[in-house]
Amino acid sequence: MALAVEFTKRQREIIAIVKREQPISGAKIAAHLNLTRPTLRNDLSILTMTGMLDAKPKVGYFYAGQQVANLSFEALYEAPIATIMLAPVLIKPTTTVQDAVTNLFMNDVGSLYVADEQQQLLGVISRKDLLRSTINGGDLRQNYSSLIMTRMPNVVTTTPNVRILDAGYLLKEHQVDSLPVLAEGTQKVVGKLTKTRLMAYFVEQGLKFEQERL
Amino acid sequence: MALAVEFTKRQREIIAIVKREQPISGAKIAAHLNLTRPTLRNDLSILTMTGMLDAKPKVGYFYAGQQVANLSFEALYEAPIATIMLAPVLIKPTTTVQDAVTNLFMNDVGSLYVADEQQQLLGVISRKDLLRSTINGGDLRQNYSSLIMTRMPNVVTTTPNVRILDAGYLLKEHQVDSLPVLAEGTQKVVGKLTKTRLMAYFVEQGLKFEQERL
Repeated sequence: MALAVEFTKRQREIIAIVKREQPISGAKIAAHLNLTRPTLRNDLSILTMTGMLDAKPKVGYFYAGQQVANLSFEALYEAPIATIMLAPVLIKPTTTVQDAVTNLFMNDVGSLYVADEQQQLLGVISRKDLLRSTINGGDLRQNYSSLIMTRMPNVVTTTPNVRILDAGYLLKEHQVDSLPVLAEGTQKVVGKLTKTRLMAYFVEQGLKFEQERL
Repeated sequence: MALAVEFTKRQREIIAIVKREQPISGAKIAAHLNLTRPTLRNDLSILTMTGMLDAKPKVGYFYAGQQVANLSFEALYEAPIATIMLAPVLIKPTTTVQDAVTNLFMNDVGSLYVADEQQQLLGVISRKDLLRSTINGGDLRQNYSSLIMTRMPNVVTTTPNVRILDAGYLLKEHQVDSLPVLAEGTQKVVGKLTKTRLMAYFVEQGLKFEQERL
């Protein structure tokens, strides 16, 4: 079905409501959206004319668009994280807390990885670690990053071949903002996977799927 | 297919590699994982015996598990965010920055919503706002939250009926950590949707799907 129509946010909400509760009256759809029936008239006309909804007198609205819309589990969850990981922001163990905060804002990231000259991971500093450190006082120009970082081997890490689903499980279970990605069998940082990146990935895949379907 | 087997992380990685590159030799699988061929022998036996993989002499391994594994787009992306939103942590505009930081740590959240007595949203304070404020100095016991918050109407908000996909789009496009959920047509805060919650939701759905399939 090739549609040239871009549905509005409200129209997409109506479709979702009808899918869940069909058959459903126009009045009930309006109630769900805290809107009046006349306000919805135009949207319901558009959705009926484009074939997304079907209206039966005295019964209500039905969903009439493509009935089955399936995503591939393999494509969405089983790709290796190497395909979506980001470049890490590395700092030295001797970087001051003050410079770490500047670095965090400059790069607009949530966490910094502390590494040695060979890019081997020593530890991780999160926004929360920096906030704790700044509120506790002390001279931020004197304190080293290595003093406030979460230190290896206490950092949860992963490797490039791990499935997106398994890396997501680690982020969720350990309640961390990001996972340093280390080359298999080494301590060398080759990437990072953040909650933000993973969330954006799932949303992008959903949008792409929806667009291809229309 | 009802399997009593729990595959290890490495075995799941092998399955994913075979799915992508079949037919593939044992040596190539080992190379992907930076492991030696003998190390993998046991895993490959288990995967072949359980019927997940099929081995053809001189050709390589094939994936022989359930070939089609589809997720429902509607179930994953089109449910209203009311089904997954969290309870918001509300503070007053007169809460000091110091108390706001304490509140953030106590509740272990990434952002606080500033609301009036009627729970109407006035603004939002993120971990980043607090970090900026604490590093800039000044008396944290004197400064009010209302001075450092992102103020309405500059806050990106949403409503309970919005689809998970559309709320995810807002989080991604506006690069915010959370969306206050306001009752339709009002300023009243009824929930929040965070990047963390959304990421965890997608991961949970993937794990659930995989478990039900096995």
